Amino acid sequence: MFQAKGEKHWVIPDGYIPEHSSGELTSHESVCVLNCSSEEALLRFTIFFEDREPMEDILVVIPGRRTKHIRTSSLMKEGMPIPVGVPYAIEVKSDIDVIVQYSRLDSTQAENALMSVMAYPVR
Amino acid sequence: MFQAKGEKHWVIPDGYIPEHSSGELTSHESVCVLNCSSEEALLRFTIFFEDREPMEDILVVIPGRRTKHIRTSSLMKEGMPIPVGVPYAIEVKSDIDVIVQYSRLDSTQAENALMSVMAYPVR
Amino acid sequence: MFQAKGEKHWVIPDGYIPEHSSGELTSHESVCVLNCSSEEALLRFTIFFEDREPMEDILVVIPGRRTKHIRTSSLMKEGMPIPVGVPYAIEVKSDIDVIVQYSRLDSTQAENALMSVMAYPVR
Amino acid sequence: MFQAKGEKHWVIPDGYIPEHSSGELTSHESVCVLNCSSEEALLRFTIFFEDREPMEDILVVIPGRRTKHIRTSSLMKEGMPIPVGVPYAIEVKSDIDVIVQYSRLDSTQAENALMSVMAYPVR
Repeated sequence: MFQAKGEKHWVIPDGYIPEHSSGELTSHESVCVLNCSSEEALLRFTIFFEDREPMEDILVVIPGRRTKHIRTSSLMKEGMPIPVGVPYAIEVKSDIDVIVQYSRLDSTQAENALMSVMAYPVR
Repeated sequence: MFQAKGEKHWVIPDGYIPEHSSGELTSHESVCVLNCSSEEALLRFTIFFEDREPMEDILVVIPGRRTKHIRTSSLMKEGMPIPVGVPYAIEVKSDIDVIVQYSRLDSTQAENALMSVMAYPVR
Repeated sequence: MFQAKGEKHWVIPDGYIPEHSSGELTSHESVCVLNCSSEEALLRFTIFFEDREPMEDILVVIPGRRTKHIRTSSLMKEGMPIPVGVPYAIEVKSDIDVIVQYSRLDSTQAENALMSVMAYPVR
Repeated sequence: MFQAKGEKHWVIPDGYIPEHSSGELTSHESVCVLNCSSEEALLRFTIFFEDREPMEDILVVIPGRRTKHIRTSSLMKEGMPIPVGVPYAIEVKSDIDVIVQYSRLDSTQAENALMSVMAYPVR
C-alpha cells in the first residue's frame, strides 16, 4: 500500500484558454495531478470568473499510482465547457492528498510560448 | 458564507512592463488574484524601484467569489502609471486572505514569450 | 564540512519529453539538483504515467558541493528510457537534503519555448 | 522604519547563461531581489558547478526600500565572471530578510523564450 502525498486543496489564480492556435501545436492548458497513493483520488474543481458566478463541482477521478494531465477544455458543467478567451481561476479540492501543477501552451503565434507553476497549496 | 483562503501579504520581485509589442498580442503583465470568500477584498499595492522612492497605496477591490486579472499598466498613483521598460517589484497587501499569481506576456518579437510564478507569501 | 540543505522528497507532476526539435536547440527537460553538502547525495526517481505502472528506482548520484542538471531522456530503467510524447510525472527521493527545480525547453517550432518550476517539496 | 520581510537564504538550482543572442533582446538571466526594509541588505552569492569547485562570496548590496534585478553576467569573483553555456546553480545568503525571484530570457533564436521561478527559501 502506498501512502497519499501532498495536499487536499490547491488554487491556480491565472487560468486562460487562448482563443487561437497556429503552427503545429494547439493552444491549451493542463492541470497536472499526481496521485502517489494506491487509492483513487476524487477531485472537485471550482472555476471562478471576473464577472459571473463560479462553475462548481466539476468532478475528475485520478486512479491510484497514476498521473493525469487534465486539459481544462475537457472540464464540463452540465455539458458546458469553460469559455475561451476569458480570465478565470481554478480551485481543486481532493478527498486525499495529491500534488498539482498548472501549465499553459500558447500557440496564438506560430511559435509556441510555455508557462508553468506549481498550484498554491491552501492549508 | 464562504471563507477567505490564502494569505494577506504577497511579493513579486521581478516586475517589468515591456516597451514594445508586435504580432497579434500586446506585451503585458497580470497580477491574478483569487478571492474565495463571500466578502470583498481590498488590496493595497506598493511598487518598488531600483533608483527612486516606492509608489505606495494603490488600491484595488476584488469582489467576493471572483477572480481579477489586473494589468499592471492599469495601476495608477495620482494619475501616474508604473513606468515601462524599468525593473521594479510588487508588494500586495490584502485585508482578507487571497491567492496571488503573476504572469508576463512579452511580444517584443512577433512570437510570444510567457512566464508565470506564484507570488511569494510573506508570513 | 558543509551541511545538507533543502528537502529529501520532491514531486514534479508535469513531465513531458517533446517528440520534435527544430532550430538550433534540441527539445529537452532537465531536473536540476543542488547538493550543498560535502557528502554525495543518492537520488531515487519514480516515473508515473497515465495508463501504465510506474518506472521505479532509477538511481542518480550528485557529488558533494555540486549541481547536476539531469536530462530526463538520460534516465533509464533496465535499458529503457522514459517514452517521448507521453504525459508523465516525476518523484525524486534523496538520502540527504537537496533542492530540485524542473525546466523544459520546447523547440517543436524553430523558435524556443521555456518553462520552469521549483519541484514541490513533500514534507 | 520599515521591517525586513522574506527569508535570509535562497537557492536556484537551474542557472544557465545562454551563449547566443539574436533578434532585438540579449539572452540573460536576472536574480531579482526585493529589500522591503529601511536598512541595506548585504547579499553573498555562491555559484555551484557540475565539475569544478564553487565560486564563493560574491557580494552585492541592495539599498533599503529598493529592488535590484541583478544580471548574473555581472557577478564577478576576482575579475572572473560565471562562464557562459555551462549548467550551474545559485545560492544567495542575505544578512537580513529579502525576497528572491529568478528569470531567464533566451534569445538564441530571434524570437524570445522566458522562464521564471521564485527561488527556494531554505529554512
